[in-house]
Amino acid sequence: MSLTDAAPAEAARAAKNASHIMATLSADQRNDALLSMHKALAANRESILAANAEDLALAQDDAAQGRLNPSLVSRLDLGRKGKWEDMLQGILDVRDLPDPVGRVTLRTRLDDGLELERVTCPIGVLLVIFEARPEVLANIAALAVKSGNAALLKGGKESTKTMLAMATVLAQSLEGDSSSVPPAAIQLVTRRDVIQELLVLDRDIDLVVPRGSNELVRSIKAGTRIPVLGHADGICSTFIDAGFTDASLAATILVDAKTGYPAACNSLETLLVHESVIADAASAGTAAFVAAAKALLAAGVTLRCDAPSKAVLDQQLDEGARAKVVDAVNDDYDTEFLSLDLAVKVLPSLDAAIAHINAHGSHHTDAILTHSEANAEKFMAAVDSAGVYWNASTRFADGMRYGFGTEVGISTNKIHSRGPVGLEGLTIYKYKLRGSGQAAGAYGEGKKQYKHESLSL
Amino acid sequence: MSLTDAAPAEAARAAKNASHIMATLSADQRNDALLSMHKALAANRESILAANAEDLALAQDDAAQGRLNPSLVSRLDLGRKGKWEDMLQGILDVRDLPDPVGRVTLRTRLDDGLELERVTCPIGVLLVIFEARPEVLANIAALAVKSGNAALLKGGKESTKTMLAMATVLAQSLEGDSSSVPPAAIQLVTRRDVIQELLVLDRDIDLVVPRGSNELVRSIKAGTRIPVLGHADGICSTFIDAGFTDASLAATILVDAKTGYPAACNSLETLLVHESVIADAASAGTAAFVAAAKALLAAGVTLRCDAPSKAVLDQQLDEGARAKVVDAVNDDYDTEFLSLDLAVKVLPSLDAAIAHINAHGSHHTDAILTHSEANAEKFMAAVDSAGVYWNASTRFADGMRYGFGTEVGISTNKIHSRGPVGLEGLTIYKYKLRGSGQAAGAYGEGKKQYKHESLSL
Repeated sequence: MSLTDAAPAEAARAAKNASHIMATLSADQRNDALLSMHKALAANRESILAANAEDLALAQDDAAQGRLNPSLVSRLDLGRKGKWEDMLQGILDVRDLPDPVGRVTLRTRLDDGLELERVTCPIGVLLVIFEARPEVLANIAALAVKSGNAALLKGGKESTKTMLAMATVLAQSLEGDSSSVPPAAIQLVTRRDVIQELLVLDRDIDLVVPRGSNELVRSIKAGTRIPVLGHADGICSTFIDAGFTDASLAATILVDAKTGYPAACNSLETLLVHESVIADAASAGTAAFVAAAKALLAAGVTLRCDAPSKAVLDQQLDEGARAKVVDAVNDDYDTEFLSLDLAVKVLPSLDAAIAHINAHGSHHTDAILTHSEANAEKFMAAVDSAGVYWNASTRFADGMRYGFGTEVGISTNKIHSRGPVGLEGLTIYKYKLRGSGQAAGAYGEGKKQYKHESLSL
Repeated sequence: MSLTDAAPAEAARAAKNASHIMATLSADQRNDALLSMHKALAANRESILAANAEDLALAQDDAAQGRLNPSLVSRLDLGRKGKWEDMLQGILDVRDLPDPVGRVTLRTRLDDGLELERVTCPIGVLLVIFEARPEVLANIAALAVKSGNAALLKGGKESTKTMLAMATVLAQSLEGDSSSVPPAAIQLVTRRDVIQELLVLDRDIDLVVPRGSNELVRSIKAGTRIPVLGHADGICSTFIDAGFTDASLAATILVDAKTGYPAACNSLETLLVHESVIADAASAGTAAFVAAAKALLAAGVTLRCDAPSKAVLDQQLDEGARAKVVDAVNDDYDTEFLSLDLAVKVLPSLDAAIAHINAHGSHHTDAILTHSEANAEKFMAAVDSAGVYWNASTRFADGMRYGFGTEVGISTNKIHSRGPVGLEGLTIYKYKLRGSGQAAGAYGEGKKQYKHESLSL
């Protein structure tokens, strides 16, 4: 690891050169580097926390004077209970993950003595842009080293001193005789206001990973031709299908999806209801819808309803509960509230729900509540989202919950990586062809024939 | 299939809507559509060839008056021996390929009654921009239908009448009662000069596939934020490693790689030689290098040599052969000649060769000729190219040669698809989660635990 105040183009070029060395390291060499990084941070706890205290004091000052959102201050604090230990353990956890590099995913005998292999390899140079949480620095550096990528790291300025202290320690750990990771492979970019300059370096930077607010991701996506792994919005919907009557299931899933962590990208923002569910006020469908609404209201949710859904709730709820049932405006169905607000809309069919989600959602995670397997399967095929769920909370969209061991981010891209992205998303593949003097022109009609024999992996 | 002279934004939106239907079709439905397309083209051979004859006559006229490259004219000709039959057979071949959609690539039991599945699915909407070869229209339409994608097709204007005739026929075949493919799923864009307008529609178009010249690809890559599958350049190198002495192998591979089809992207453009190979004029290494050079010269190749390689050849070749050994200029090592020219450079080490290729190559396909397995493996790990070969011709970089059954293109991207891209490259995946009422908040410390049990695929 190194600190760099070099010009962005030089830093990126150095990272690219280092990436070619990274690509040749064995899993042991990369894992040993992770161990060195862990040890170095552990041995320098005091000095890093001292630097962190300085950042914290400045931030508290800024917050007191209204220059900084107070909620940001606690995010900077590496000394908070368990945070330091979690950060260190995170490096060891990444080290213990299966090696994402060198996996053979295709092996074909083109001919005798001519074998083709598709093998996973690092992508090259990552540009990771993150906000001021200093522990992200350690996490990203660990993910990059584990996956054999070089990385340029640009963190939020409120953690400058902490990150400098951490990077200095990590740099020393990687500059030792025993480390195979070249220092330029992981660089903390310390120059300010260089993000725009970095985002044009599409020759040397292969992938941008923004970790932070929607605004950050959106502005980065709009400002670069380098592929960006991430998502700007999380407008997740759940559709209550015709014939659905399970009040308890609906309440459980919707309350979890909406209130578990309203600021999360996988939280529920829109509830769609098949019109037949609430067509008859005395039906089990209406009872299920009303029960779910009551549970949501009891959890503090404001329901932003269209006319048909509001009519049902106005009729069936007592006055106190009705206070948080308000009229929706059109924009509500295109809004990521990130708060205890939920847009509710009644639709005439499953097809209409699918069309609504494809048009108004953010292709992140959407669910259907239904007793019909056929409708569930149709919904999951037709909804164009990274996650399509049947009778489950959208909040399961998460790399740890999926069992990936780590999460690089959640992607709404349509190529490469989609949904929660584990280490695999930081790899690509190359084709290795091992021959013994073959010419392509020797094959063809009336000449040698390819065997194209699939070999075991 | 439909013809569209709609505004690009409307065409793209219609394609996007159609893509959501395409995503729900079964393999049988897509294969049946391919059969209908095949039958329709076969039944309308006369009218399509008549339209083609009109295009051809115009093109011959243009060529005669110097407005069109004469080599283009023959590419337009669908009546050329075997071309029509090959085009039709190509549709059936695509139909017979394994279904790229619906493959389950991960299945995990998160908990009882909560199963996660990662399943391949279409990307959505492709924009395929191709030159005037009319058979490409049928090929692309077949690939899109097979992979469940919608596609906007924009072909070169010299084939306008042929493509209109083909698209009309294909549209009729897909508009029949029995077809499940919505007409807007495959649209031939007939308005002229709309490419730039299409390239900004990143909300509705998910992937651009340019098929054509380097200039076309380069200009498209520079002009859009939509991911582009392709490669602008093919500067392929081969390195003769220290200790290499096999004259016959070198001559066979290098002549094939350089002269098999000089205009192809996988043709050899740069020959790198370890300095020790030619350090001793009487050595077996020098003999191998000179033998390869003689074979290349005999095949009509001009060798653009640096001083050390030229000195060896000047010494060892007779006067006639020497005429086509010329001094290289610096730009030669960054040039895709696409002709019978080959840049030759002597380098001091394997590391220098790797560094040269990573800096001057195009990350397409590069080879090493060596007797050392260790050096071959190091080269294949460190060279940052889609194809890295040991003792084989770079000309093997091709989807058909790799055994993919078809080739969508060759990609030098670092994400999603790299190297020759088969149908797989037109798919992504989504996560389906089938639950029974689970809330994510029910899991965690002191609560329910995830099982994360890997299930068979």
